[in-house]
Amino acid sequence: MSKRMDMPKESGYDAWLHYRRDRHVKQMPAWCRVIVVHETDDEVLQTAASELQQGLASMFGQQPKISTVPAHEPFVALGTFQDHPCVAERFSAEEQAEVSAEGYRIRGVEVSELAGLTGQDHADIKGRCVTVAGQTSKGVLYGVFHLLRYLQGGLDGKLKSTAKQSLHAPILDLLSNPANPIRMINHWDNMDGSVERGYAGASIFYNNNAFTTNMERLRDYARLLASVGIQALSINNVNVHQVETELITDRFLPDVAKVAAIFRAYGIQIYLSINYASPIQLGGLTTADPLDPDVAEWWQTKAREIYAAVPDLGGFVVKADSENRPGPFSYGRHHADGANMLADALRPYGGRVIWRCFVYDCKQDWRDRKTDRARAAFDHFKPLDGLFRDNVILQIKNGPMDFQVREPVSPLFGALEATQVLLEFQIAQEYTGQQKHLCYLVPQWKEVLDFDTYAQGKGSTIKRIVSGALHNSSNSNSHRGKAIVHANSGSLQEKPTHHIPKPTNFGIAAVSNIGADTNWTGHLLAQSNLYGYGRLAWDPDLSADEIADEWVRLTFSGQGKDNGDTELIPTIKQMLLDSWNIYESYTAPLGVGWMVSPNHHYGPDVDGYEYSMWGTYHFADCWGIGVDRTTATGTGYAGHYFPPVAGIYESIDSCPDELLLFFHHVPYTHVLHSGQTVIQHIYDTHFEGAERAAHLHATWISLREQLHETIYEQVLTRLEHQAEHAEEWRDRINTYFYRKSGIPDEKNRPIY
Amino acid sequence: MSKRMDMPKESGYDAWLHYRRDRHVKQMPAWCRVIVVHETDDEVLQTAASELQQGLASMFGQQPKISTVPAHEPFVALGTFQDHPCVAERFSAEEQAEVSAEGYRIRGVEVSELAGLTGQDHADIKGRCVTVAGQTSKGVLYGVFHLLRYLQGGLDGKLKSTAKQSLHAPILDLLSNPANPIRMINHWDNMDGSVERGYAGASIFYNNNAFTTNMERLRDYARLLASVGIQALSINNVNVHQVETELITDRFLPDVAKVAAIFRAYGIQIYLSINYASPIQLGGLTTADPLDPDVAEWWQTKAREIYAAVPDLGGFVVKADSENRPGPFSYGRHHADGANMLADALRPYGGRVIWRCFVYDCKQDWRDRKTDRARAAFDHFKPLDGLFRDNVILQIKNGPMDFQVREPVSPLFGALEATQVLLEFQIAQEYTGQQKHLCYLVPQWKEVLDFDTYAQGKGSTIKRIVSGALHNSSNSNSHRGKAIVHANSGSLQEKPTHHIPKPTNFGIAAVSNIGADTNWTGHLLAQSNLYGYGRLAWDPDLSADEIADEWVRLTFSGQGKDNGDTELIPTIKQMLLDSWNIYESYTAPLGVGWMVSPNHHYGPDVDGYEYSMWGTYHFADCWGIGVDRTTATGTGYAGHYFPPVAGIYESIDSCPDELLLFFHHVPYTHVLHSGQTVIQHIYDTHFEGAERAAHLHATWISLREQLHETIYEQVLTRLEHQAEHAEEWRDRINTYFYRKSGIPDEKNRPIY
Repeated sequence: MSKRMDMPKESGYDAWLHYRRDRHVKQMPAWCRVIVVHETDDEVLQTAASELQQGLASMFGQQPKISTVPAHEPFVALGTFQDHPCVAERFSAEEQAEVSAEGYRIRGVEVSELAGLTGQDHADIKGRCVTVAGQTSKGVLYGVFHLLRYLQGGLDGKLKSTAKQSLHAPILDLLSNPANPIRMINHWDNMDGSVERGYAGASIFYNNNAFTTNMERLRDYARLLASVGIQALSINNVNVHQVETELITDRFLPDVAKVAAIFRAYGIQIYLSINYASPIQLGGLTTADPLDPDVAEWWQTKAREIYAAVPDLGGFVVKADSENRPGPFSYGRHHADGANMLADALRPYGGRVIWRCFVYDCKQDWRDRKTDRARAAFDHFKPLDGLFRDNVILQIKNGPMDFQVREPVSPLFGALEATQVLLEFQIAQEYTGQQKHLCYLVPQWKEVLDFDTYAQGKGSTIKRIVSGALHNSSNSNSHRGKAIVHANSGSLQEKPTHHIPKPTNFGIAAVSNIGADTNWTGHLLAQSNLYGYGRLAWDPDLSADEIADEWVRLTFSGQGKDNGDTELIPTIKQMLLDSWNIYESYTAPLGVGWMVSPNHHYGPDVDGYEYSMWGTYHFADCWGIGVDRTTATGTGYAGHYFPPVAGIYESIDSCPDELLLFFHHVPYTHVLHSGQTVIQHIYDTHFEGAERAAHLHATWISLREQLHETIYEQVLTRLEHQAEHAEEWRDRINTYFYRKSGIPDEKNRPIY
Repeated sequence: MSKRMDMPKESGYDAWLHYRRDRHVKQMPAWCRVIVVHETDDEVLQTAASELQQGLASMFGQQPKISTVPAHEPFVALGTFQDHPCVAERFSAEEQAEVSAEGYRIRGVEVSELAGLTGQDHADIKGRCVTVAGQTSKGVLYGVFHLLRYLQGGLDGKLKSTAKQSLHAPILDLLSNPANPIRMINHWDNMDGSVERGYAGASIFYNNNAFTTNMERLRDYARLLASVGIQALSINNVNVHQVETELITDRFLPDVAKVAAIFRAYGIQIYLSINYASPIQLGGLTTADPLDPDVAEWWQTKAREIYAAVPDLGGFVVKADSENRPGPFSYGRHHADGANMLADALRPYGGRVIWRCFVYDCKQDWRDRKTDRARAAFDHFKPLDGLFRDNVILQIKNGPMDFQVREPVSPLFGALEATQVLLEFQIAQEYTGQQKHLCYLVPQWKEVLDFDTYAQGKGSTIKRIVSGALHNSSNSNSHRGKAIVHANSGSLQEKPTHHIPKPTNFGIAAVSNIGADTNWTGHLLAQSNLYGYGRLAWDPDLSADEIADEWVRLTFSGQGKDNGDTELIPTIKQMLLDSWNIYESYTAPLGVGWMVSPNHHYGPDVDGYEYSMWGTYHFADCWGIGVDRTTATGTGYAGHYFPPVAGIYESIDSCPDELLLFFHHVPYTHVLHSGQTVIQHIYDTHFEGAERAAHLHATWISLREQLHETIYEQVLTRLEHQAEHAEEWRDRINTYFYRKSGIPDEKNRPIY
């Protein structure tokens, strides 16, 4: 069933699901020798039982029995509150009601029953089953993965425990509901097998303009995703090229259905990226105008065909009028026209339209300092707020530019009051070292999620906006918002809100970082970003530290030659936690971004995008650097935020150092809050950054004896490259600014 | 026979061989109604007769007869001095002896006989035949093309005539011998159909890893080449990839033979670029060490196979130990070891080894200012002078870098005293506008050819070096040179010279600028570079103006709607003559070079190669710019030249402005000989350059009524693009230097 068996041990293929056997445990604990699950043809529940069975077998060297009836021996019970009395009976009606659609409860033995007993007695106590329960089988599946995490010792950050507890009947009693209704991953895979911005080998979905035949690999991927709560997956690149345009035709729909079936068993819904010009390219129409009745009809017919093949398709992801992709602009229509027409076609089948806001002028004139790419998404979409159907979701990148190592949050979050939104992160390290450099991105994502927009006063954090919580509360508490447009409103006019549905069309999406490399992510440590993304999408309140702790434990616990986890776990965790800051320090300074080689975006090129048409400038001259985005003298972008944020960015005195050059053009001699001048800050951070990259490398070498050889070597070569490449970054950035400013380094270090 | 017939009129396909009919000529002049040629199976002589027949037919609307015996009517006779008494009898023994192997004499009616006669009488005069004669049939062929040029009115620059003269029996009496024994074109075509640095469509030789089946196109290409005296052609890229490595195997040799046959009929010898690692890749040997007897034997066997298939193959072109190509360095051997081993294998068949000197460290550290790529060819090859076999020729690029718009000449010319050399030009406009910008390169080539190296005192011009004339005179007049090593010397030791052969292994090669575009060169006006290269290789004493005049007349005479040549010819000629200077003025200033986008080399990117490993730096900082290549304080490159050249370049006071930044690092405020500062020179030339590019465009528009529509449009779109792109160059270069220097333009023009 699984490709895993064919893979070499410690190749990284099992990622955080390796379920290593602890050599100190001689036999399987009594409580988990039987798994009780109601007879069912619910695939996801079957998956849950099977995952638990396999996981326990791997950890304890013995296969638990699956039984449909409770035994007299201890057991672990799985199911929804409806499935099985032995599940339901452990939770009060109130406790059951607290569980959301995809949430779960896990209850182990009661703590009170343990008083005075030693571990060996646990098998004999009353109330001795462990129960994993949900409203739905998906909830149960997530609960099972939680339980397995717990048992692996890579414990949920909130559930500290000792190794001893994890071996015996778990003393758990917990409720977990996902914060975000949609927890999605976007693949930028092309059918020729390439992956746009892919840094871990070829596509696992396609090769040679056909679907893969390696369904085991897809199933193993589904496991990884489900284990961290991902339940939505778009399987092709948002830039939909010629062959991929045909994914919604007979040529490929049978294949899409096969892939959907694999992911369905893990509770994951498939989405397709579509080509907005399909009516022309596939349908032979002369137009793709969203207001043309033939176009609307073409999409309705097409939707019928698609849903006949894949009845539970999530819907479409659409990149339109962006970077030369076709869209409604060609016909003088706006994005809402385009999205709503598609939404109406998908509505009968429960499908969603996820419409990307990454829209800007990619043929900008670098001479023109008034046009500001950072403004583009806001300028395009803010005026359309309230005009979208209730099955349209706008997908907004975390920042206004494009996944730079440092950007402010997109001001669209909060500004769209009557529109459903998805936050878009990029797990793929396009601008953050391309999985050759270590860059644990969870701290960056945390800063975004915790950012307070003040859209509805203090506490209007991004995480509350994208989860729908703020929308929900604002719409029930007040009527300041405009309504999401319901299909039968039949008009794009603004309407007062009457009925506000439960906001299920909110959440987070992220661009995948995996590929056909054996360890999925190329850089083994980049698995932490996939893991962390899923965990954070489930629970944005987890800290970067907690998530790193979980991932390192799950990945490395017990893998070393001498189980020397005491040093291994905290050391690797610290490497992760330091890595974003290290990467930032030797690349583009103070939030200015870019400075990478055009096209492939790897490696330093300070002027690489300076005179291009992409709208990405730093305006460095011999006096200073930075982009004036103030309302007073600049592009006005700072004014897109709510007060007090707008004011903080507007003023050079209050603007945080790390975003200074994003918002202001300053002389090199400007003194930062840190007390350092801008130029000396550039020199210092770049020298330090390269040193710290070298230290990451040295640290890894120090762990050699505690790591399996193949794992050690995999990571070693990348850290080695990173250390060298950080020196190249250091020297090129420092030299560029020294040559330009003429101001020498105070510490007189080598600059060329 | 010819593809020409299928092509639309005025597509540019006929290039300078269109032989338009002059509407003023009502009937064929008497003197050319019969072509007398000896019965022969000499293919080249047949070609000559056939070309003359076709050309005359096209110009006069009537097919001349071909006859083996002189008629009583006037006739035109072709042949070698040996072929036919009516050819030989018109030249004295002395006159015959003055003709070299590939030269020719043409003698028309005697001037004295014309005294007092009007045109109509010409047919009746005595001595009334026109004779084209040579030592060889190749000479006759070149003579025929000369005669046709003359008749077309696009007269040889040395033979001014009136339209009237060209219509009637030509009053010619001329001798023409080619200056350069080898006049070669190098194709950088790959078998997948791509052309490295090709700007005129796909390869005409290959597609889809096979040879073309379009032999008519090859034949038409052969005509173009032969018409300007080209007689050597390498047919595959010097970077020999996997498939092309097999060109010397049974897989492709039959195809090579077919292609060779086509070019043979036009007197052109084929060469192949070979992969130095062939013994490993094809032969299964473990080494390609030139001193390994198995390797030498493998090549000897291989040569036997190759020459069995193509008995008159010219030989091999070899790029070894250059830009990651394999070569003798891998085995601790030097270039002479590598070249001589191959030369010995080819010697029995009269084959040559053309060994490229484009060897440098392409993994240089930009931080290291001591390593100088400009030094590389000299440093590698000067020590090997005198060690090469007499069928080895070193091919040296005109400058020390790589075909920049402005470079000094390579100091290897003249420094190699006992080595046969080919000068390498690039007709393809890799760094000079890629056939989107107009850049007539003949003036640049003329500067190179006329440059006096002072290698053996005043008059040691490049053209005398590459033609072998200097070598010849120095070896006959003195014994200061070391000898070219003869095969049976059997040793790499220096030897005193005893027998100096006639230097036939000298000459000029150039990288092709043609492709499968209908008009061959993409930019129609870029045909002038192919034409001009051929003419210059034949006669380096022709001026750029004379060649432009010829080409414009041949291409445009009588093509306009109203034959309005009076304005057309001088206007287009002036556009050509101005174009190199215009291109130089808006691109990299003062000889510093590069400043182009990496990889594709098109468009401005001032720092594009500044921090790369390619050895191509300008070192611009806020104070100044340029590369110190002096012996006093720099890399010492200037010392590679002979005095007084070395001294001229060494001193900032005597170094010519146009090469200042190639040899010196100077402040922006340095005052040029022109009286302008460096920075103001940059601003001025860039503003002027863009204006002049716009003027080219406007000038072309002014010619609209006089040009055929398709020709007009073809060129118009390119000049339009050039004018726009020149503004981009202007603004990027100016902005870069203003931002860097902080020095404003004196004239306060817009800089960003």
